[in-house]
Amino acid sequence: ALRLLLSEYHYADIAEILDELSLDDAMYVIKLLDSETTSDVLMELDEDNREKVLKNLSDKEIAEEVEELDTDDAADIIAELPEDRQQDVISQIEDEEHKAEIKELLAYDEDTAGGLMAKELVKVYETWTVAGCLRRIRGQAKEVTRVHSIYVVDKQEKLVGRLSLKDLIVAKSEQKIADIYISNVDFVYVDEDVEEVVKVMQKYDLEAIPVVGQDKTLLGRITIDDIVDVMKEEADKDYQLAAGITQDVDSDDNIIELTKARLPWLFLGLIGGVGAFMIMEGFQDAFKEYAVLFFFTPLIAAMAGNVGVQSSAIIVQGLANDDVKGSVNSRLLKEMLLATLNGTILAIFLFLFVWGYNGEINKALAISVSLVAVIIIAGLIGTFVPLFLDKRGIDPAIATGPFITTSNDILGILLYFWIAKMILGI
Amino acid sequence: ALRLLLSEYHYADIAEILDELSLDDAMYVIKLLDSETTSDVLMELDEDNREKVLKNLSDKEIAEEVEELDTDDAADIIAELPEDRQQDVISQIEDEEHKAEIKELLAYDEDTAGGLMAKELVKVYETWTVAGCLRRIRGQAKEVTRVHSIYVVDKQEKLVGRLSLKDLIVAKSEQKIADIYISNVDFVYVDEDVEEVVKVMQKYDLEAIPVVGQDKTLLGRITIDDIVDVMKEEADKDYQLAAGITQDVDSDDNIIELTKARLPWLFLGLIGGVGAFMIMEGFQDAFKEYAVLFFFTPLIAAMAGNVGVQSSAIIVQGLANDDVKGSVNSRLLKEMLLATLNGTILAIFLFLFVWGYNGEINKALAISVSLVAVIIIAGLIGTFVPLFLDKRGIDPAIATGPFITTSNDILGILLYFWIAKMILGI
Ligand SMILES: [Mg+2]
Ligand SMILES: [Mg+2]
Ligand SMILES: [Mg+2]
Ligand SMILES: [Mg+2]
Ligand SMILES: [Mg+2]
Ligand SMILES: [Mg+2]
Ligand SMILES: [Mg+2]
Ligand SMILES: [Mg+2]
Ligand SMILES: [Mg+2]
Ligand SMILES: [Mg+2]
Ligand SMILES: [Mg+2]
Ligand SMILES: [Mg+2]
Ligand SMILES: [Mg+2]
Repeated sequence: ALRLLLSEYHYADIAEILDELSLDDAMYVIKLLDSETTSDVLMELDEDNREKVLKNLSDKEIAEEVEELDTDDAADIIAELPEDRQQDVISQIEDEEHKAEIKELLAYDEDTAGGLMAKELVKVYETWTVAGCLRRIRGQAKEVTRVHSIYVVDKQEKLVGRLSLKDLIVAKSEQKIADIYISNVDFVYVDEDVEEVVKVMQKYDLEAIPVVGQDKTLLGRITIDDIVDVMKEEADKDYQLAAGITQDVDSDDNIIELTKARLPWLFLGLIGGVGAFMIMEGFQDAFKEYAVLFFFTPLIAAMAGNVGVQSSAIIVQGLANDDVKGSVNSRLLKEMLLATLNGTILAIFLFLFVWGYNGEINKALAISVSLVAVIIIAGLIGTFVPLFLDKRGIDPAIATGPFITTSNDILGILLYFWIAKMILGI
Repeated sequence: ALRLLLSEYHYADIAEILDELSLDDAMYVIKLLDSETTSDVLMELDEDNREKVLKNLSDKEIAEEVEELDTDDAADIIAELPEDRQQDVISQIEDEEHKAEIKELLAYDEDTAGGLMAKELVKVYETWTVAGCLRRIRGQAKEVTRVHSIYVVDKQEKLVGRLSLKDLIVAKSEQKIADIYISNVDFVYVDEDVEEVVKVMQKYDLEAIPVVGQDKTLLGRITIDDIVDVMKEEADKDYQLAAGITQDVDSDDNIIELTKARLPWLFLGLIGGVGAFMIMEGFQDAFKEYAVLFFFTPLIAAMAGNVGVQSSAIIVQGLANDDVKGSVNSRLLKEMLLATLNGTILAIFLFLFVWGYNGEINKALAISVSLVAVIIIAGLIGTFVPLFLDKRGIDPAIATGPFITTSNDILGILLYFWIAKMILGI
């Protein structure tokens, strides 16, 4: 009865339910599913849960699931297994072609086009006729869930163009493929960065893109559903990084995993706070008469942090979208103007508040002028650090959130006391 | 010559170049393009630039571009025009069917499935035969850039199933559509929220989804390329919100626009800082002997901010992914345990530092115990506020970044002095 009920559901829905069950219950349900559904469900499970389920399956059972999967998913599942199990599972795969293709895919870096592509695609030779083509496609297409485009290759297996099923249906059956194919075909190289593939597919509104080797040999195909998953993952990761959370955790993970992802950044904040303490202690004697200045350090730190996060976030996003143009200097100049404008507006309010509250114009002036300086420096650091990291080939996304707030806390407070000291003539 | 050169480029590339040119140069190039390319280029331009270009085109010229576009893009362009121009442009559209469809689309909210769908789709009636179907599709498909699925409707135009082109090619020509269609078809209602449509399409790996009215009448179709654009926009917006940037600005926008997006959050930070100042001033006399405590306020504020941002970011993301399960209380309990664990580890380090540096164990204890309390409260606020906003139907994404850091700065500092006072018995 349960089996019948399950057969009514989409595998993605079954996976969602299994993610909520205990491992024992999940295993029980998995054994009830027919083999094709099991493999699809496996792919959709949460990574942590999939790991547990795979531990409970034998090499043979995993190999059987892998047989049912497209090559890209098959390779991903195998890559998730512990090193020593990978070979055992692969050797149990019966279909020799599938086995060879999976092995090929396992060799590519997961952050490249090769790591994302599948070997399943529909390929025709330019010398074929439309009629012959349709016949062959009826064969090939059975293995390919969705056809999207038909890729046209020459005798050396090099990609020369594409055809849509629609073009093929509309064409006359005696026409040669060479006469009807579209030679203007988008493609990516197998070692292209995944984020670059995302950009190309988004820009040209593609549903699939062929992947070629350096000599343009057709190697595989990337489909938009996998790109959509990559986009979601990247966006989640960047959002978490900006919030001071490393590793890909989610709200349902356990406390130990969450601690591993959160504690390092908090520790950085602690060190920053100790730094701020030491700076303030250093200025203690100089400002004996001016205790009020110490009460503004949280304000200074907060403003330095906020401005730094704003400017770094804009630069990190601009870099990701390839629209940071012009030189580093012109960027810094622009941020300086912006920070001066924002800083001055804020400083005027702060000046009026301190003056009105306290009556001492020189203190009010010292605090406000420092605020402007702190905001400018914070903005410049927020702009410069991600640009610098990007130039050095480091993902600038780490340079926002706690990283910037911590360094800006320390620098901001130091600068604040230093400028206040000058203005007050201590 | 330039015209010839341009014809070699993809419209998305031309748009990228135009985005870099002055308006005059851009207009010059646009006039050189053939009409179909112009409309596609227009769609790909940066929104700010498109607005300027449209201002330089007559109603008639815009109407001509709109004729070339798919209905979804056509409606979007018209919606961007000033209210008073919209009717003038629509009335200049010659194709009556296209005009009616655009008018229909303009009526839907842009954050719903209706605001994203296009009227272009391939539709067949269940009573048709495969042969008849192929004939009709050859006609319909000319207007539809990509076919994806063929939607099957009954006599009342209600969606009953789908067919792939592949199924149609594989079927025998005398078969009835009613006998071969797949009745298990995913669809969304026209008033469904866009973020929900994204989730459905990602979950079921769809390239297109039909949109229906409440009575299941087939109204339109949403394609994955538009979903990919929505995902990118949403991710960018949430990232910016978390960094304290409102409105959809990018690094190339001018200083005034950037100020409008950034200043409000900075102002919030300023108010928070003034609040912190007033709290510290209030505790000034009580802690005359304990000046060292004031030097730890930036540390306390930073930790409260960081913990709050971490916990809010995890909840905001969990809510967006629909995987915040269980009650609010169990969430708060989990965050409390997590914060206690993290807080205790951090407090031990801080205790050892202050004790070692300062030699006074009671001060070290007061500071460290307060830190644990502050971290717990900060974590709870970071967890509670987004859950609360979500329950009230407000986008929880605003409740991270500056919003949380500012409120946590004030509360953290208040709590810190209050607990320290108790421990030190002042
Ligand atoms: Mg892979
Ligand atoms: Mg696009
Ligand atoms: Mg598009
Ligand atoms: Mg795939
Ligand atoms: Mg990234
Ligand atoms: Mg996880
Ligand atoms: Mg629209
Ligand atoms: Mg998916
Ligand atoms: Mg998938
Ligand atoms: Mg569209
Ligand atoms: Mg959102
Ligand atoms: Mg803009
Ligand atoms: Mg802060």
